[in-house]
Order: sequence, then structure tokens, then C-alpha cells
Amino acid sequence: MLINNKEMTVAIKEKRGQGLTLTTKQIPQDLKSDEVLIKVLATAICGTDYHIFTWDEWSQNRIKPPITMGHEFAGEVIKVGEQVNRVKVGDIVSAETHIVCGECEFCRTGKGHICQNTQIIGVDTDGSFAEYVKIPATNCLINDKNVDPRFLSIQEPLGNAVHTMLHFDIIGKSVAIVGCGPIGLMAVNIAKVVGASKIIAIEINEYRRHLAKELGADIIINPLEENVIKRVLEETDGLGIDVIGEFSGNKTAIEQAFKYVKLGGKMSMLGIPSKTIELDLANDIVFKGITMYGVVGRIMYDTWHQVGGLIKRLDLDKIVTHTFKLNEIEKAMEVMKSGNSGKIALIP
Amino acid sequence: MLINNKEMTVAIKEKRGQGLTLTTKQIPQDLKSDEVLIKVLATAICGTDYHIFTWDEWSQNRIKPPITMGHEFAGEVIKVGEQVNRVKVGDIVSAETHIVCGECEFCRTGKGHICQNTQIIGVDTDGSFAEYVKIPATNCLINDKNVDPRFLSIQEPLGNAVHTMLHFDIIGKSVAIVGCGPIGLMAVNIAKVVGASKIIAIEINEYRRHLAKELGADIIINPLEENVIKRVLEETDGLGIDVIGEFSGNKTAIEQAFKYVKLGGKMSMLGIPSKTIELDLANDIVFKGITMYGVVGRIMYDTWHQVGGLIKRLDLDKIVTHTFKLNEIEKAMEVMKSGNSGKIALIP
Amino acid sequence: MLINNKEMTVAIKEKRGQGLTLTTKQIPQDLKSDEVLIKVLATAICGTDYHIFTWDEWSQNRIKPPITMGHEFAGEVIKVGEQVNRVKVGDIVSAETHIVCGECEFCRTGKGHICQNTQIIGVDTDGSFAEYVKIPATNCLINDKNVDPRFLSIQEPLGNAVHTMLHFDIIGKSVAIVGCGPIGLMAVNIAKVVGASKIIAIEINEYRRHLAKELGADIIINPLEENVIKRVLEETDGLGIDVIGEFSGNKTAIEQAFKYVKLGGKMSMLGIPSKTIELDLANDIVFKGITMYGVVGRIMYDTWHQVGGLIKRLDLDKIVTHTFKLNEIEKAMEVMKSGNSGKIALIP
Amino acid sequence: MLINNKEMTVAIKEKRGQGLTLTTKQIPQDLKSDEVLIKVLATAICGTDYHIFTWDEWSQNRIKPPITMGHEFAGEVIKVGEQVNRVKVGDIVSAETHIVCGECEFCRTGKGHICQNTQIIGVDTDGSFAEYVKIPATNCLINDKNVDPRFLSIQEPLGNAVHTMLHFDIIGKSVAIVGCGPIGLMAVNIAKVVGASKIIAIEINEYRRHLAKELGADIIINPLEENVIKRVLEETDGLGIDVIGEFSGNKTAIEQAFKYVKLGGKMSMLGIPSKTIELDLANDIVFKGITMYGVVGRIMYDTWHQVGGLIKRLDLDKIVTHTFKLNEIEKAMEVMKSGNSGKIALIP
Repeated sequence: MLINNKEMTVAIKEKRGQGLTLTTKQIPQDLKSDEVLIKVLATAICGTDYHIFTWDEWSQNRIKPPITMGHEFAGEVIKVGEQVNRVKVGDIVSAETHIVCGECEFCRTGKGHICQNTQIIGVDTDGSFAEYVKIPATNCLINDKNVDPRFLSIQEPLGNAVHTMLHFDIIGKSVAIVGCGPIGLMAVNIAKVVGASKIIAIEINEYRRHLAKELGADIIINPLEENVIKRVLEETDGLGIDVIGEFSGNKTAIEQAFKYVKLGGKMSMLGIPSKTIELDLANDIVFKGITMYGVVGRIMYDTWHQVGGLIKRLDLDKIVTHTFKLNEIEKAMEVMKSGNSGKIALIP
Repeated sequence: MLINNKEMTVAIKEKRGQGLTLTTKQIPQDLKSDEVLIKVLATAICGTDYHIFTWDEWSQNRIKPPITMGHEFAGEVIKVGEQVNRVKVGDIVSAETHIVCGECEFCRTGKGHICQNTQIIGVDTDGSFAEYVKIPATNCLINDKNVDPRFLSIQEPLGNAVHTMLHFDIIGKSVAIVGCGPIGLMAVNIAKVVGASKIIAIEINEYRRHLAKELGADIIINPLEENVIKRVLEETDGLGIDVIGEFSGNKTAIEQAFKYVKLGGKMSMLGIPSKTIELDLANDIVFKGITMYGVVGRIMYDTWHQVGGLIKRLDLDKIVTHTFKLNEIEKAMEVMKSGNSGKIALIP
Repeated sequence: MLINNKEMTVAIKEKRGQGLTLTTKQIPQDLKSDEVLIKVLATAICGTDYHIFTWDEWSQNRIKPPITMGHEFAGEVIKVGEQVNRVKVGDIVSAETHIVCGECEFCRTGKGHICQNTQIIGVDTDGSFAEYVKIPATNCLINDKNVDPRFLSIQEPLGNAVHTMLHFDIIGKSVAIVGCGPIGLMAVNIAKVVGASKIIAIEINEYRRHLAKELGADIIINPLEENVIKRVLEETDGLGIDVIGEFSGNKTAIEQAFKYVKLGGKMSMLGIPSKTIELDLANDIVFKGITMYGVVGRIMYDTWHQVGGLIKRLDLDKIVTHTFKLNEIEKAMEVMKSGNSGKIALIP
Repeated sequence: MLINNKEMTVAIKEKRGQGLTLTTKQIPQDLKSDEVLIKVLATAICGTDYHIFTWDEWSQNRIKPPITMGHEFAGEVIKVGEQVNRVKVGDIVSAETHIVCGECEFCRTGKGHICQNTQIIGVDTDGSFAEYVKIPATNCLINDKNVDPRFLSIQEPLGNAVHTMLHFDIIGKSVAIVGCGPIGLMAVNIAKVVGASKIIAIEINEYRRHLAKELGADIIINPLEENVIKRVLEETDGLGIDVIGEFSGNKTAIEQAFKYVKLGGKMSMLGIPSKTIELDLANDIVFKGITMYGVVGRIMYDTWHQVGGLIKRLDLDKIVTHTFKLNEIEKAMEVMKSGNSGKIALIP
């Protein structure tokens, strides 16, 4: 095989501390019987990658350098382990990034997304900011070869958005998207293509508010300039919002959401608050008859089938706003820092 | 009040037998305390109206002439009974056409659509092929005044289509619409705006196949010219269709549908077969793990809220293909007979 | 009619402040066309009645004396308004205590339990601590005449317990009942008769823990003596509880519940915390994939049908622990205060 | 290892034609890395085994002798393949009998029960009418060691009954069990322990009707002596049955069921009709708003968790009516033929 003993370019977290290192590394050689080797065609930057880059508190506790970063990607299968049947050399695949145990009660009852023995690609194992990546075959989703690999590379976060937005029925309902980072932007677009009646996007960054509008938001609100609760109630005949998708993790934004959610309404929570929330359980949940759902990853693999079914209806060309070469990754991280971006793709 | 003792134009079933009569009648005077009087702005022709017109077997058993025909409409509230609060004079309303008892187990548990004491407007009570119509206030749905009354007038059959298509989850799924009469055409459009992944429309009439295509069908099949089962399987990687909406009532079409529905698939049945179906229950339902659902009317009033939430996303301008004056109703019936139409509206 | 102009015994909140007054009052005479007059056969004391009796902060803000107290009851229909058909003189009925508007979006879509125009019997209108009570016919549930009226009188709180426990699927699942006041005790018994796999009851009062055991709890925990989180995890192979029914409203108990709920678990909240809860949303809801539901009243009238379907399977003879005459109500309130009771019935 | 090269007693289908052969065979030696070897403690006879024994039409088309029969069993794990972690030597296990591919769309989305690459133990691979059986580790369910192995051995058909009865909500509802063979009898007992309001069992065999009564049926009907439709309607206030579990596969019984199912009712179909059913789709499904579900196997492995959660609540001691030694299997088949049995266990 041609790639034997060859080197590849990678972006790694070399050691504890801020930053990353562009270097070369041997292409993975030792495939287990259930693994595949993939040539990365496009990989995308997740907020998690940025946290690892900036070496935030979470990263300090979780990451054990050296490790190749990155987990959102699409690529071509180059080699398959001896027991692999479903995935073939030449397939264009994306990856579920949760490598789960397959044996616990959760895994055996369709709830692998909450498996407690999960390893995450690019966090616990070498990732996709590389020319080649090695993963278990079972984590591969086989793609339509006609779709731009940059769009295929963002299906994993798209799966988060789909899981969050489709957990509750939003067809013909009013929805609020709280926080329009890349996943919130995807959520806006999903709400649009599945027929939500009114889509309200709440976001402080002007670039992203503008993008939310283009992706289908009927109303955009800047919480720094407007009274969000008042405005949302005005836009909903005083009744409030049917379904809220929470992507901000922001304490104030969440506390406001409890005030403008409709009686009997639903809240799907993906954003990760760094602080505790002071919850008036009696008035905000019990007396209002609210349902709240915590979103972890993607349902394996139902969410991926939903993603696959929706991918051609979505405006992914608007969601991927920037494309860089892998060796320009530090430049990409700068754009990420600015907030003036949707999803950023890297081409190895 | 100005309309007292005045006459209005109506299309009635005057006596048993084929045809209808255009005549005048006194505007309804005697409102009960819970009723409203409505000036009809637009009314639409249902297949049921056509059956009453042609005096088919069902009509012969059900209709007791003389009766004013018609039940799909939108209009302005002119007068309200003394106990009516929710609906106001000046409101633009459409009507749920099932007048239900409100007291049976079904009505009291959110299943009024299967109430056995139901009376139907234009079938059991005087209907909307008239300048004015009188109905219970509770049956009124209050509309957005900015929407074309012709589009508002078709929300009742649209509710049938919504009930049929949204009973099972179709987001990101493959769907087949069997039979593209007006309600089937609406179903195609609904599937499109809620993000079905692939929409296959099956219809013998060329005009309607063409319209299905415009309304969002990815694939159209003429069952007179193609092997439907073979084609559907080809279009679905041999797996078959996730969710089928049955609008034809056609024995052959239904028997075929059981063959191309996917394992674990869903079938939502609105079409009314005139004959019994020879069902291979073992192979077509049990071993395939199929779920089948019989659709009656509209969930009161959840379906109407779904309709209201979707109405601005739908292409109703393409679904209403013809508009006539009420006194041209016989001409409209001719168009209906040809099959070369979507929904036909009448303006009193 | 014999009861005209006659007096009846009633327990009323005569004026602002602690206590109640036993007195006589004219039997209600003036039935509206949609109302019925009921001879009370048995009435039961709710925690709300006790709050009104002790004149707590909530009562001070809500109750406008003078008012006849009480809302849980069963009785015989003595007289019906002229438009009442469903309910007949002689029927033995219980009452849904939420008198809802019937016209709002919630009422019209099967969610009357969260109607914002609700009036509550015995809180906003004269109640059932009386020989006779007048209510809307639509609020009547017609009972099996062979059941002890004391058992029929507690169907309204039983409906709360059913709504809380059956919102999530508990068949074959582990459940924790947090707080075993009368409704929590009912919840234990419901969990038992619908086949929960393991029922853990958490309660500080010994009398009620003992009763919980008799009603079906497999495990009883006194949180004052045991580490609840540790014990629950031990009893569930370290995985935690599938479904939690929260009846305590206690801050500590709720915060503990978030720690022993299983990943992907469900929490159904009926208890009313008087304080805010400090919620670690990230770790307790989002990362665990938890669903939380706020319970308001009873689904109208689905919950009542569930109650009716279960009533003969339940051990209501163990749940109603005390019976007093109506004029012994102050003695009954003393028992209530002690906590050493299940449900307390009063016979007028 | 002690069992190496040893022989074991087995009941096999030796060649095409009626009957079976008791013989000896080498204990399975060659475990694949993902397989386990189990010492059978108890095995039970399924209707399928009886069909293979009598060599009915289905068997003639499906079975390729020689093969060891039997698939319902419980046993002790004696040896595990090198990649097996979850299952340990010494575990008492039962088996999901569907060996599925794990790679198709169905398997990857929690619907392995309809995998089209399924092999069935005792039908396609050597089974459990033997002292030892070898199966994939993933198919093992680990049991509580304190339960009688005969009861553990029937969890696979119990899973069919659970899947059938719990697909639709039956808590507090009226249910009819059509056909009280062993799985129908389990269904009666399940309906009882999950709190169905009224349980009607329909069965021609007196022994089984009697057993149905003991297992919780409120009403038993002999369709040879009574008008089933009339009787069921009488027992349900003329409204009909909420949920039907169909276990008979009998054409007449099924056609009757459509007549006494309630409006909006549910039908869960496990019985396998050998003939087509003449279905009046319009009147029996569409106008009644019926939902029908075809049951295949057990949801993997949710149904097994439900079974595990219910097993201690059920009266399995009444369901297992006969126990034989494995070498008395022909005598057991005679009892099976008589119909005068519940479940029959064999002890190797």
C-alpha cells in the first residue's frame, strides 16, 4: 500500500498550554479488525477545538497531550479492517465522533449517546486535523458522493442541531433559537425547512444575526439592545414560544427563556452553562407545565438518518462561511475568535 | 340589521336525483345563543359536493333534500349569538365542518373527530354554497385577515391532508402520496414544506401529476404506464417507502402500497375504498412490522393549529387552480369531473 | 322542590386570618342553565384546604372570604340546569375542580389544565365542605354507584398522582416517589398497580413511610437518617432511577433527586417549592440527557378516564385513613397537622 | 476444559418429514471470538418447535435438517470467546433468538427486530433442545440467579407478549386478548400486572380459558358458544375495546375484532393468519380511526428490559404448566398437541 510509512501533516495539541502545533506524523498503520483508515477530504472546526486551542479550564482537565485535534470531517475510505463489511474502500464517509462501548444498558437500548464509556475522536483519540484518520467502522456514515465534502464534514454538529430541534414537534409551531453560533445557525435553518411557523433568533453578534436572517429567521433580536421577553411576547400574541432551542449556555438568556416560553411549552437544552441557574421551579416549570430536555450528542444512528434526509433541503453553502487549508489553521482560529463566522472548514 | 328578511343566492340539492338548483332563499335569521352568522367570501368544492351533485349511492343514503350544499369556506362574521365571546363581528373565519356533541367520551378526551353524534355542514345542515351561512361559534377558526379568502376557504380539506401526513413523523423520511386529487396535492406540498427527504407522487391524471411536481414531488409515477412497485423500490435503494399517505381509495393502489412500504413503515389512510381489500395480513402487516392508521376528519382543534402554522409556507396559489362565481357552479362541476384541476373556489 | 329555601351546614373561611367557621347557609338556588346541584356524600381535605385554614402566605394573596371551603368530593346530582343532558338527576358524580374557559387556545387543544382563565372550586367559588354544592355540569365525572363515596371523593388528587406518575412510561421501570403525603402515597400505589419494577419511597414521616410500604413500596428511605443518594444508587446497581415523581417541593430533596436520576431519566414534578432551586443545568440536565415535566392539575378529561380505569385496582381503603363528620372538621385539621394520616374524608 | 470432546443429549430434526430424533452429539467446541457456550438449565417448547416436529408447510420451506431444535432457554455460561467482556463465565443467561446482522439500517437505528439478515436459533442454527448451546454473546441477557430457570427460559416468548401488549398504552384501558395459547396467556397476565381496567380473553379451549381467568382475565369468552361481538359490546357499554392483542391468527376471530374494537382503538397483531383477510378498510379502519401494528419479535433490547422489569410481578408459576425431562420431549409434544397446557419446560 502506497501510504505505508509515509508522513502526513497534522495539527496537534503538543503539550499543555495555549496554542497548537502544525507538524508531520506517520500515517496510522495498525488498523484493528473493526477499524477503517480514512483520507480526510474536509474537516471543520468545533467550539471544542477552539477550547482545546485556547486551553480553557475544561481542556486542562480533559485533554492529555500530545493528541491530534479535530473530529468533524468527511473523507474517503482507504483501507478497512479484516472484519469490516458494511464500509468499503472508496466510500465517502463522515463520522459519529462518540466511540461508545456497545455493551452497557444504554448502548443496548438505542441510547448510546449517553454511554458512560464514551471516547471522543480528537479529544480522547487522534482526530481529523490530519490528512488521514483511523476510526471504528461502526462510527462511519456513508455519504452521497455528489455532495461537497465541506458540507459532509459538518454533519456531526448538524446532528446536534437536529437532535435539539426535532426532539419536540416544531412543525407549524413558533420556535426561538437562543444563541446563533454555528449550531444555532443550523438550528434556524432546520426550523425553516421543517415548517416552523415563526422562527425567532436571539443573538448578540451582528454577523450571526444577519446570517440567521438569511437562513430563515423571521425575527432576529439583539438582547443587548432589546428587552427580549417583551419582544418575544409581542411577536407571539402575548402567549410565548412553543419550543425553545437553547444553544447559548448563557445564564441570563436561559433565565429569560423561562419567562417567554408558552404554557405547556418545550425547552431543548444543548448549550452548556458554566454557572448554576437560579430556577424558580414552581413558577417557571411546575405551574407552566413545561417540559425540558437535555441534549447529548446525536441519537445513534437515528439522528444521522434525519441529517441524511434533510441535508439536501438545507442551505449548507450559507452555513459554511469560511474555508482554509489545514496549514492555515491558526488563521482560521482567529476568525473563530472574532465570532464573525458560521462554520469554518479546513482542507488538508 | 340590514340583512333581515333579505334573500340570498344559494346552490341547493332540491330533490333526490342528479344535479343541483341555483335559487334564492331567506338569509338565516334565527341565531341560537351559541351560533354565528357569516357572510361567505369564498367557498370551495369538495369531492363530497360532487358526489351529492351526481347523486351517488352514498348521497342517496345520506342526504335529505332540500339542503344548501357546501362546507369548505371562509367568511366574515356578521352577527353573533348572545353567549358568543370568542368570535367577534368582523372576524374572518373558516369552519371545522364537524358539528360534534361535546359530551361523549370521545369529545371529552380530545377525540371529537370520531364523535358518533357528528353533524356535517352542507351534508346534515345548510351549507356554504350561499351568500350567508349560520354555524356554531365553537366551529369557527379565526383567520389572519391578510390572506386571500380563497386560500382560507380550503383549510378544512387542508386539515385532512395535514392530519394524514403529520400523524407519522415524515421529517427527513421518504414518503409516497398515493392519489393526487386536491387533498393528495396538498399532501405533496405539506411533505415538501416539512422536509420529507424524497416525495413520490402516484397519480394517473397527467394534469395532477404535473401539479404534484410543481408542488414539490421529487418523483411522479403514472401507474397506468409504469410498474409502481418496481419503480418505488428502485427510487429507495430497494428498501421501500418510510411513510405512505393513501388518498386514492383505489383497491389496486392500496394493495401495491403494501408491497413497497418499508419494513417498520407507516401507512396513513384517508382514501375511502368502495370495495373490500384482500389483505395478506401475515406478510404485509405482521412480518413487516407495519403501522396503519385510519384518518377521520381533523383533530379538533390541534390540526387546525398546525394548518394555521403552515399556511404561509404552503403554495396555496398553485393548489387553488380555478375560481368561479357561485352562479357558475355547474361549470365548476364540469371542470371537477374532468379531473384537470386542483382545488376549485367559488365566490358568492 | 324540597330543598328550596332550606339551610345547610357548611365550613367556611369567614374572614381573613387563621381558622374556619362552621355555620349554616342557604342551599344554592339559582342554577345556571349549564350547572348542576349536588348533594355531597363525602368530601376530602386537600393540603390546599389546610393552607387556607392556617391562612398561609399563598392563601392571604389568593382567597377572598367569605367562601365555602373544600373541592374534593363525591355526591348525588339533585337538580340539573335546563341545557344539561349528559349528567342526570341521581347520578353519583365527582368533580374536576378546575372550571376552565373552554375558549382559549389551550382549552381548544386538549390542554384545559393550563387554561389561564381557570377558577377553582373551593378557592374561587363556593366549595364542597357543605351539604350541597353547585358546579358546571361539564366538570362532573359520572361514577360507578357501587364504589364507597369516600373513595370516589378523592379522585381529584388521585388524578394529580396519575398525571404525575403516568406522564412518563413506568412499566417495568424503577421509580422513586419523593414525598409521601397523601398524593405521594397514591403515587406509590399507582406505581405498584401498573407494574413498576422497583418502587422507592422517600419520606421523613414514619407513619407515612409505613403506609407507603403497605401500598407497594419495595424500599422506603428516611432522608433524615440515611444518605438518600447513596442508598438509591445501591438499590439500582449504581445506575440510578428511571423515573422520579416529585411530590415534596423540598429544595434538598429535589437537589438530591438530580443526583440519583439515571442518565436519560425522567422527572415529573408536582411538588411546589417555596424557594428557588440552584440548578447545575450542565451536569444535572444537559450532560445526563434528562427530561423534566411540570405537572398542572389533570388532563381534561383523559386523566379522569385513567383514574376511572384504575380505581378498582387501587387500595383506596388504605389511602383513606380517617373519616370524620363534617362538623368535626377542626379535629380532622388537627390530624392533618400531625402528618400521621393518609387521606382524610368528611361526611356532611 | 472438562467438556472437551464430550457428547451431549440433543433433540434434532434429523431429516425431512414428521417427528424428531433424540440422539447424542459432540458438545460445541469451536467458539468464535464473540460467542459463548452455555449449559442449558431449562428450555421451553415454542409453537414453532411443534410446527417443525409436525413438519408443516412452513417448516418444509424453511428448515434444512439436520439441525438441533429449540430456542427458548436459560442456562449457565461455561465458556466465553476471547473478545467477550459483558458476559462472564457463571452468568445465568437467556437468549434473544434473533441473530441479527448489526449493520443494516434497521439494526443501526434500534430496529434490529426487523433486520432482514436475521438467523434464528433452533431454526437456522443449532438450538437449545440440548445440554449445551453456543450463541453470540450479544444475544445473551443476564438474569437474576435467584429465579427458577424454567421461568427464565420463557422470557423470549414473554418478550413477544410484552411487545404486543405494551406497544399501545393499556393502563386503565379495556383490552381483549384474542387467542390464549401460551403467549396469549402471558398477555392476559401482563395486562393484569400493568393495570388494564377490564381484560377480556377469547379462547375456544376450556383449559386455557380457565387459565386465562386465573392469570387475570375479568371476562372469558368461548367463541364457539357465544356471539363474541355482542358480548364484548355488552361488557364495554356498547363502546367496544380500547386495545386488542391478536394472538390467534384466526380469520374469523380477526374479522370479529374489527367489529368490536372501539372508535380510535388500537390493534396489535402477533398471530399469523394462514389465509388472507377480507378487510372492509373503509368501515373497519378509516372511518373508525383505528391504528393497527404488526409485531415482529422483540425490540432489541428494550423489550427485554421491560420483561426483566416485570418478571417478578408476573405469575410465571401458573404459566409454566408442565415440566418434562429433555428425553421425554415426545411426551411433551403430545401435551402440546392436546392444547391443554400453558408453557411446557424441558430439563436437559
